Amino acid sequence: MDDSFLPIVRTVAALRGHLAPWRERRQTIALVPTMGALHEGHMSLIRLARAQADRVVATVFVNPKQFGAGEDFDHYPRDEAADARQLLAEHCDLMYAPAPEEMYPPGFSTAINVSGVSEGLCGAARPHHFGGVATVVAKLLIQAGPDVAIFGEKDYQQLMVIRRLVRDLDLHVEILGAPIARAPDGLALSSRNAYLSAEQRQIAGRLNAVLKEAAAALGRGAQVAGVEADATEALLSAGFASVDYVEARGAADLARLGPGPVDRPTRLLAAAFVGKTRLIDNVAVG
Amino acid sequence: MDDSFLPIVRTVAALRGHLAPWRERRQTIALVPTMGALHEGHMSLIRLARAQADRVVATVFVNPKQFGAGEDFDHYPRDEAADARQLLAEHCDLMYAPAPEEMYPPGFSTAINVSGVSEGLCGAARPHHFGGVATVVAKLLIQAGPDVAIFGEKDYQQLMVIRRLVRDLDLHVEILGAPIARAPDGLALSSRNAYLSAEQRQIAGRLNAVLKEAAAALGRGAQVAGVEADATEALLSAGFASVDYVEARGAADLARLGPGPVDRPTRLLAAAFVGKTRLIDNVAVG
Repeated sequence: MDDSFLPIVRTVAALRGHLAPWRERRQTIALVPTMGALHEGHMSLIRLARAQADRVVATVFVNPKQFGAGEDFDHYPRDEAADARQLLAEHCDLMYAPAPEEMYPPGFSTAINVSGVSEGLCGAARPHHFGGVATVVAKLLIQAGPDVAIFGEKDYQQLMVIRRLVRDLDLHVEILGAPIARAPDGLALSSRNAYLSAEQRQIAGRLNAVLKEAAAALGRGAQVAGVEADATEALLSAGFASVDYVEARGAADLARLGPGPVDRPTRLLAAAFVGKTRLIDNVAVG
Repeated sequence: MDDSFLPIVRTVAALRGHLAPWRERRQTIALVPTMGALHEGHMSLIRLARAQADRVVATVFVNPKQFGAGEDFDHYPRDEAADARQLLAEHCDLMYAPAPEEMYPPGFSTAINVSGVSEGLCGAARPHHFGGVATVVAKLLIQAGPDVAIFGEKDYQQLMVIRRLVRDLDLHVEILGAPIARAPDGLALSSRNAYLSAEQRQIAGRLNAVLKEAAAALGRGAQVAGVEADATEALLSAGFASVDYVEARGAADLARLGPGPVDRPTRLLAAAFVGKTRLIDNVAVG
């Protein structure tokens, strides 16, 4: 096969047709669902996938169902040619880039919702977001039937929703979370960082630093409620326009914690606005 | 294999383990989901499955999620030994009879809903019913991964919900509807007919006769609204305690029709109570 050529399929039928001979040869398949606008964070997922399976399939689909009214669906960055070049450079085997009408043809009527882990955090500010995520991820997993699928820990709540979804629907796939790829100042890589001005980019870099300090305090036994309040204050002082949440939650199930010291494996999660750009991040505690 | 022995599996892992060698040999698999209390109607599904695939798997699971508060979940008839004997007699290859905790373990949080076709008709009186059906059928199809799955046309709205679900989630399975099996007087066979007294059983037999007469009138060009009202009146006169609905709908998508003559392929559907037992039936128009 020409090494300078990344096959792209755009329909479920073409996807299954492309995967069939791999299955015949009993090659394992890793799926990396993305919304495109690929960056080094996505590439770290592709490399993890490469290490896990014989074949790597990346999906590029900006899923309208996971954007709310007034969110950035129309302006979300799209550059398929650049995405394809990066995927090829990391030896991805196939790009699956369906049109919205292929994923949601006229008459489409099915919605999947995961309660519990979808609630609070980003689910509070974006009430239909995780339903849209669950629906599209179920479809992608059913369409491709991979052995393993990779999702970034940057969208930690999303990863928990997907783990729950896959367990609940008995989808026969292993879900792997990949560590967050970060800029030198700690900013989690995100396609939405492209929205930031130079000044905003400096402010944005404080998000991870504040979370790391807060997680360290929790690790030393500080009270959850106080640490959350202090971190929120620190973000506002650093120039964030508003803070959606800073919350410590159970790492495995996002269960709410009491106000006192952490008493279980914990994840500290935050969402905050720099200008009009909403950034998220999270760190392990302890 | 001993011909007098029907293998029964009770877990997803055992089910997949049992199916794997069949797939290795490239045998096709037909799935027949049931709630047990099997009767000749179910056996007609098994025979259809037998004609469609190399292997036939029947599932027996009384799905708590499709029963509403005050409905007959606790009293729904259950007789697994009798079910197994009947399945064996029709050369079914495997019974899959999971416990509720296998299907919905602690922490289960996922719900699937199909809008549109789930609305009105039985969806009006049973608001969570089709969500429960969609969730369990998606799970069963994902668990077993059959080539074809058979559902009776008696639950016509359910069949439409499942067709929509399968298309929307890209489940790689053919859905086949099986004609309604009926008693000599036309009563659609149903596990719930066991609830009827001798007198109620006589009344129940009128449901199909009334629907057939109404469908014939629609076929001759009668007005939908008038036919629906007349059929409702006829059922009440015949001794039905109440009528949930008699409605003509588009046969393919259950779209509502105008009050005038039918203008497309049409299905006439009804639900009515004999005593406390809710019976449903439907017939094609024209």
